[in-house]
Amino acid sequence: MKRVYLDHNATAPLGPEARAAMSAAMDLVGNPSSVHAEGRAAKAVVENARAQIATAFGADGADIIFTSGATEAAALAMAGRDLQGAAIEHDAVRAWTSEVLPTSTEGRIAVSQASQSTLQLANSETGIVQALPSGLAVTDTTQAFGKLPIAFNWLGAEMALISAHKIGGPKGIGALVMKRGTDLAAQIKGGGQEMGRRSGTENVIGIVGFGAAAQAASKALADGVWEKVSELRNILEDALEAGSKATIFVGKDQERLPNTSCFVTPGWKGETQVMQMDLSGFAISAGSACSSGKVRASAVLTAMGFDGQTAANAIRVSLGPETTEEDVLRFAETWLEKEKKHRARAA
Amino acid sequence: MKRVYLDHNATAPLGPEARAAMSAAMDLVGNPSSVHAEGRAAKAVVENARAQIATAFGADGADIIFTSGATEAAALAMAGRDLQGAAIEHDAVRAWTSEVLPTSTEGRIAVSQASQSTLQLANSETGIVQALPSGLAVTDTTQAFGKLPIAFNWLGAEMALISAHKIGGPKGIGALVMKRGTDLAAQIKGGGQEMGRRSGTENVIGIVGFGAAAQAASKALADGVWEKVSELRNILEDALEAGSKATIFVGKDQERLPNTSCFVTPGWKGETQVMQMDLSGFAISAGSACSSGKVRASAVLTAMGFDGQTAANAIRVSLGPETTEEDVLRFAETWLEKEKKHRARAA
Repeated sequence: MKRVYLDHNATAPLGPEARAAMSAAMDLVGNPSSVHAEGRAAKAVVENARAQIATAFGADGADIIFTSGATEAAALAMAGRDLQGAAIEHDAVRAWTSEVLPTSTEGRIAVSQASQSTLQLANSETGIVQALPSGLAVTDTTQAFGKLPIAFNWLGAEMALISAHKIGGPKGIGALVMKRGTDLAAQIKGGGQEMGRRSGTENVIGIVGFGAAAQAASKALADGVWEKVSELRNILEDALEAGSKATIFVGKDQERLPNTSCFVTPGWKGETQVMQMDLSGFAISAGSACSSGKVRASAVLTAMGFDGQTAANAIRVSLGPETTEEDVLRFAETWLEKEKKHRARAA
Repeated sequence: MKRVYLDHNATAPLGPEARAAMSAAMDLVGNPSSVHAEGRAAKAVVENARAQIATAFGADGADIIFTSGATEAAALAMAGRDLQGAAIEHDAVRAWTSEVLPTSTEGRIAVSQASQSTLQLANSETGIVQALPSGLAVTDTTQAFGKLPIAFNWLGAEMALISAHKIGGPKGIGALVMKRGTDLAAQIKGGGQEMGRRSGTENVIGIVGFGAAAQAASKALADGVWEKVSELRNILEDALEAGSKATIFVGKDQERLPNTSCFVTPGWKGETQVMQMDLSGFAISAGSACSSGKVRASAVLTAMGFDGQTAANAIRVSLGPETTEEDVLRFAETWLEKEKKHRARAA
């Protein structure tokens, strides 16, 4: 039986638009910094991708600095600034913050000094969406970009982090988007690429894939793709809720990403669920991908007030545009069977 | 008439092995950090590529930390260490060094404190190869890897920088190779990938391309491909020398990369030569690619004692495995015609 991939927040499959653009870019020979025809052709596709991303992200007139991903963009935006942050941020953001912003039991963050703070737009584990204060220093929009109708120029933040592989582009390419003229010290120095903000020969194939994916994601969003995904997510949650009365759906009454469901089933470890569902053909997660190899409770849920033991019983199911109703119904059926067996064993 | 690409030291065309491996990797859905089957499959190809690179680079038992390229690897290896370096290093290395090591007129560097110094193995502009002292802190092997028979484990350096796009892999992926257990502080932090030394979701497609390119480069080197390239480079230099008595071939009596020819024609600006040859269908360079957009004399040649005006009259021609004898003879013919016209105008 075909496997069902329900871990889109960890990484999304490469979309056909990115794949085609990347394959075409493989024929380009030049280095974008070279002045000859081959170099200029490589430069042109990089700049075309930058424009595609600016349009898709509503960032016309902003600077888009390509990086190796949102993690590098976070370091570039935040290292040495000691911004205020919350415990629900991604580890790549948490690495650089003072964790002084409290998280409410609804998973919401109140920022006191916007210009000295960072706040994600949507959480990777729960999907909970934040209202961003105006003048925010940095926002991590990695999970929200492509899934929610947002525009950098209207977010009110000075800088935003984005990543290609969450929206159907390749892994290993992302960007720091910033209001034009914002001061920024380079961390990777040398040839002076990316307006001196980030040196190194450009990842041309990755950048081209990012641009094509951003354009496709923007169109899919406008076409209502994620509304359909949201309906499937709700079908899934309704089916699970009907079959397992003890299961808690985190953030269900909050504004959430359309594709994300995070739920806790008391007494049943998330890791065990992930492994059992994997053996049955379903790819899901027990937290953010980076930390999913580690045995620990979700920092996101503990920040929201769950005790460590309960937080360790969470799993995340994250749907994508290619997810079908059959996929989610099969998931629900399989998961409920296992949950019933778990209860029988525990009793 | 087909264009002739003679700028391989700036970047090499993507090889068929890398292309095939990358296309196959596009079908992989998972994040290497995810524990489910899709994640494990992605992790497996990353580790396979790491092993391919270890074998090709003679670095079995060493740690290979994937980065977005040699420029990032340089920052990771050298930031904050204030190593001693020479002016002939690449800008990505120069950014982090105290430039106290003198360059001889032959382009050679004498290191006094190996453990506190960095020295490139081969120069990107002249191709001149250095004898590395034992115990060297860092060596930039970006240009030498694949073209010379070297092994990291016999270089005597603690760390080495390598890049995929110089050896037929994609741009935007490289590595820092280091003796196992060497202490290193991460600069890009977060999920803890690459043994905690470099966080961020892995550039799976790029890494797979790097691995395949390294394996292919190793085989090509063993098959004598670069000896043939060296013969063509010598044919080119002989033809140019026969037609233009004033032209100086830099480092011709030194050990050089097999594919590189750097030559100075007094009174004729390198940039002008690059533009004229570009219009005639040949891609060459007037220095390293990153700085080639800038109007300035080669720092490499001025370090070797050329005055600024003479150094500005240099061009670099760098051949690759697909270069033919017809390519170099056509180049020589075209260049000599232009050189003759230049002399007529200057007279």
